[in-house]
Amino acid sequence: MSLKPQLSGRAVRVLVCTERKTFVTRELAETRVTFEGIEGDRHAGLTRSADVRTPWFPKGTPIRNTRQLSLVSSEELAEVAEALGIPKVLAAWLGANLELAGVPRLTHLPPGTRLFFPEDAVLAVEGENEPCRGPGRVIEAHHPDKEKLASRFVKAAWRRRGLVAWVERPGLIRAGDEVRVMVPRPVTYVLPGKPA
Amino acid sequence: MSLKPQLSGRAVRVLVCTERKTFVTRELAETRVTFEGIEGDRHAGLTRSADVRTPWFPKGTPIRNTRQLSLVSSEELAEVAEALGIPKVLAAWLGANLELAGVPRLTHLPPGTRLFFPEDAVLAVEGENEPCRGPGRVIEAHHPDKEKLASRFVKAAWRRRGLVAWVERPGLIRAGDEVRVMVPRPVTYVLPGKPA
Repeated sequence: MSLKPQLSGRAVRVLVCTERKTFVTRELAETRVTFEGIEGDRHAGLTRSADVRTPWFPKGTPIRNTRQLSLVSSEELAEVAEALGIPKVLAAWLGANLELAGVPRLTHLPPGTRLFFPEDAVLAVEGENEPCRGPGRVIEAHHPDKEKLASRFVKAAWRRRGLVAWVERPGLIRAGDEVRVMVPRPVTYVLPGKPA
Repeated sequence: MSLKPQLSGRAVRVLVCTERKTFVTRELAETRVTFEGIEGDRHAGLTRSADVRTPWFPKGTPIRNTRQLSLVSSEELAEVAEALGIPKVLAAWLGANLELAGVPRLTHLPPGTRLFFPEDAVLAVEGENEPCRGPGRVIEAHHPDKEKLASRFVKAAWRRRGLVAWVERPGLIRAGDEVRVMVPRPVTYVLPGKPA
């Protein structure tokens, strides 16, 4: 009856951004996560200010922070690169904190999915991280010979830009860690008036 | 592009339990919710100890508390009562904090659903609250003439016992409040090896 992790992957990179003026992250060998998120990271905090991601709240409203970590997939980054006609898209350029490999269609993992790391840390998926224009500008800066990379990024990264998550259990995350993925039981809610 | 609430219902009852020895809740006209949950309620707290609900954690491990509030549906409680052959099942007997009416199949609302109340409070659904035996014993105590209500409760309440949720935005919740329900975009994750 009890759920168990059904998938596994690997955390190929761990990245952090401790600055305010950029979202670009830099690689570390490991990072500690607490109930606030990644220690020192710009997205850490028990709460955050509502913004364009949550337009149903007045901008600036303090809300529980469910966007403590940003996760991307090696496979999906390769798809984004192919769509843009460039060799690679780096997790750092997207401000990601974790790059996972081996989890098919990472961006499609549903809300409530849990990610278990070997040294206690557990992350809970809030949902898809919809692409915005910022990473496109970083990519463009790295490829000045290519046209319109910034404006093409959002479309190229749609449904491939990864997830946002928060810390359910504190612990340590190391580059190279195996990650076990527990997807919740599927739930289909049919809104009244809509065909099933 | 932005999500909007697609459903609405009414909070017909607000209930709280401030004691340790029972889970039975008592009705109030209103309650304040903070990032810790319902002020003074036994399930409040930024964190909780992992237990039988989360068997993938060692028992007692501190984890983020996603079970701050328990929600039930008037319609589903009526179905449970019918299945048990008794006139009513009260939200208080199930230790619920909110009884909502007018939301079809409340227990099937997916993880990540948001519930918006008129005075700022917003709850985020963690998922289904699977029935355990405790409420069955309370129901049995109220109906000593009926057989085996305690042992029949779990089956009768399966998929009807409501949801657990946590506070995304603090505020006030009053009995009688309209509740707007925002269901996330449907996501289907097909596990490798399983038919779609």
